[in-house]
Amino acid sequence: VKASGLRDLLGGSDSSGPVPRLVRLLGARGAMSPAQIARTSGMARSTISGVLAELRASGMVVEVRRTTSSHGVGRPTSFFALNPEAGTCVGIHLDFEGLQVLVADVSHSVLQESRIPLGVDYAPALAARSARDAVAAAYKRNGLSLRGVLGVGVSVSGPIAPDGRVQRASMIPRWAGKNIREVFEPVLGQPVFADNESNCAAIAEMTWGAAAGEDDFVLFKSDVGVGGAVVVHGRVLAGVAGGGGEFGHIPIDADGGMCRCGNRGCLELTASFLPALERASRSHRRPLKIEDLVALAKSGDAAAVRLVAETAERAGRGLGVIGAVLNPGLFVISGRGAYAGDLLLKPLVESYQRHFFIKRDDVPAALATRFVIGKFLANDSLLGAVGLVLRHRGRL
Amino acid sequence: VKASGLRDLLGGSDSSGPVPRLVRLLGARGAMSPAQIARTSGMARSTISGVLAELRASGMVVEVRRTTSSHGVGRPTSFFALNPEAGTCVGIHLDFEGLQVLVADVSHSVLQESRIPLGVDYAPALAARSARDAVAAAYKRNGLSLRGVLGVGVSVSGPIAPDGRVQRASMIPRWAGKNIREVFEPVLGQPVFADNESNCAAIAEMTWGAAAGEDDFVLFKSDVGVGGAVVVHGRVLAGVAGGGGEFGHIPIDADGGMCRCGNRGCLELTASFLPALERASRSHRRPLKIEDLVALAKSGDAAAVRLVAETAERAGRGLGVIGAVLNPGLFVISGRGAYAGDLLLKPLVESYQRHFFIKRDDVPAALATRFVIGKFLANDSLLGAVGLVLRHRGRL
Repeated sequence: VKASGLRDLLGGSDSSGPVPRLVRLLGARGAMSPAQIARTSGMARSTISGVLAELRASGMVVEVRRTTSSHGVGRPTSFFALNPEAGTCVGIHLDFEGLQVLVADVSHSVLQESRIPLGVDYAPALAARSARDAVAAAYKRNGLSLRGVLGVGVSVSGPIAPDGRVQRASMIPRWAGKNIREVFEPVLGQPVFADNESNCAAIAEMTWGAAAGEDDFVLFKSDVGVGGAVVVHGRVLAGVAGGGGEFGHIPIDADGGMCRCGNRGCLELTASFLPALERASRSHRRPLKIEDLVALAKSGDAAAVRLVAETAERAGRGLGVIGAVLNPGLFVISGRGAYAGDLLLKPLVESYQRHFFIKRDDVPAALATRFVIGKFLANDSLLGAVGLVLRHRGRL
Repeated sequence: VKASGLRDLLGGSDSSGPVPRLVRLLGARGAMSPAQIARTSGMARSTISGVLAELRASGMVVEVRRTTSSHGVGRPTSFFALNPEAGTCVGIHLDFEGLQVLVADVSHSVLQESRIPLGVDYAPALAARSARDAVAAAYKRNGLSLRGVLGVGVSVSGPIAPDGRVQRASMIPRWAGKNIREVFEPVLGQPVFADNESNCAAIAEMTWGAAAGEDDFVLFKSDVGVGGAVVVHGRVLAGVAGGGGEFGHIPIDADGGMCRCGNRGCLELTASFLPALERASRSHRRPLKIEDLVALAKSGDAAAVRLVAETAERAGRGLGVIGAVLNPGLFVISGRGAYAGDLLLKPLVESYQRHFFIKRDDVPAALATRFVIGKFLANDSLLGAVGLVLRHRGRL
């Protein structure tokens, strides 16, 4: 298997032919049958057969599954995927006090995931060196060659301008004005792509998760902050300065408290899990995390159930705001708050119904907005950073 | 000139050839040079020349302008447009107490515009009959054949579901649940296309006005109500139930007054011109319209200036909300409030700067959001209804 072959095919300048098209499709979607490829790409079945044969012969594509029809007759269906050994991607997530690193093969299997604590307010140069060492160690441990790396995706806890510059109002204030690509590319020696963590989460969910196959949806992240992403026509809406989907900074409360962004009354001051955690931590006389509060609520602790519901109620008003702007057909609820499942979702949807101006009874069921919990609550941003590489290299 | 020829070309089932493609392009853009057609369509120059010659011979396209280069040498540039005599469109706008009817040729020249008062809470059947009579009279007066009608676009003061059904919370409550197409098509005997008035306004501005050539922008309508439209990738975002861009119903104030939609604290309760008009009407002891208040403000009346500025301040907070969701590169401000020009725009932009979390100094000028006043304040919804026909027939 030529590791650099896939890299050339995904990123080469002549990318309009059937071979790179099919490779990009498999890169973005994972395993597909020839029928699915035909439906998605519009390519002729005979072309697809020829290209698949060629790619299998060169070792870049493998058959991963074969199913027979449910009634046991007829031809079996084969599913094809990029050969996991033919290329790998690195995802990095920069959060409040360190970074997470994930190595995945092009079939989206996670080969290695690790966390590197760097302390609050860590410096960009330190992050870049730490990432380089972690990536090298992970590749060595898995017996992989760094020549097969297709790229590095970086997910950032804060808004990012389209050129890769971190904006103010992020969770990592020391990075304001720094260009992620300029920080990481020289140290890692790999092509680097960057986006906001919630935009990455949306990419993970639309590529492999709860929004697979959806062209238009909104991701709402409920955690110690509030974030989100707007997907329209299959693309994440960045906004002219990278401020699209920054739901945490919706100015919801004219006389509200001061936010880290410098404004008053931002949605995340009241609709994140922070107020609930502060309250619960006081009651329990120990610092509680979202996971702790959710566990208490699930065990039937009435106060914890109430705190989750009140957080959902305030978030639902934010969803009502988003509804009047976008009226999305689907909300994917992510973030650690979503671990609460229906304990969060039910009061959230009720609050949305109360604050959105089109009521459930106003429209037929097909025009009602659906709500689902995200599939990758534990590592959606990291997985999405990998998806970012595949989308960018594949020019999706 | 064959009037039905253009109708067939714009709406025919075989619409992928170079002839219908070029006709659709001219239908949507107005006059274009061959170079502009080549840039926009990607068609070869030789193909364009051949198709233009064919369409000119059949009378469907005419040369409308010829320019020489600024230094007077070189070949002159010709601009071509659809022959105004080859097809016409009707635009209808349904508002609070009647309808407006506009007839335009395919070059977007307005041939006739009229207003038909029907009284508050008028019935759909009456509106359809009145529209039919007005259209017939307008065509007769202009010596036009109804066989040349390409379609009728209907703009509605309220949200419309994608299937053409009027939602609750519109300015015309009796129409709730009525399907615009089913009301008008049998009576008019023409293909009918319908959308919300602000979405129509956005189509007018993006086709011929302040947002021409912009793929992504937000239209904000400041009038006795507040409305808007979201344009992404060159298409108006309808929302799953037609609620996209309904900025008037953003739940901005948790403890606010009751809105006609049944919710509390909707943006238009405070950010429309209604509170300012009520206040000014009390002071002046006569009912004032927006035009009156704007005239007073422009003449230097300090109270009127202040009322316009306060309206803008409250609307600016709404724009800050939209900013955190979409971060658009361009806001087009329309509605009669926009007649106030800078008296509205300056405090509006200042308020936006205060409520949006990315500040002017945070980003280079290229990433800053621009604000412009709409071009068609007097009849943008009507013109957009015409644009709706051209877009739908042209499958733009």
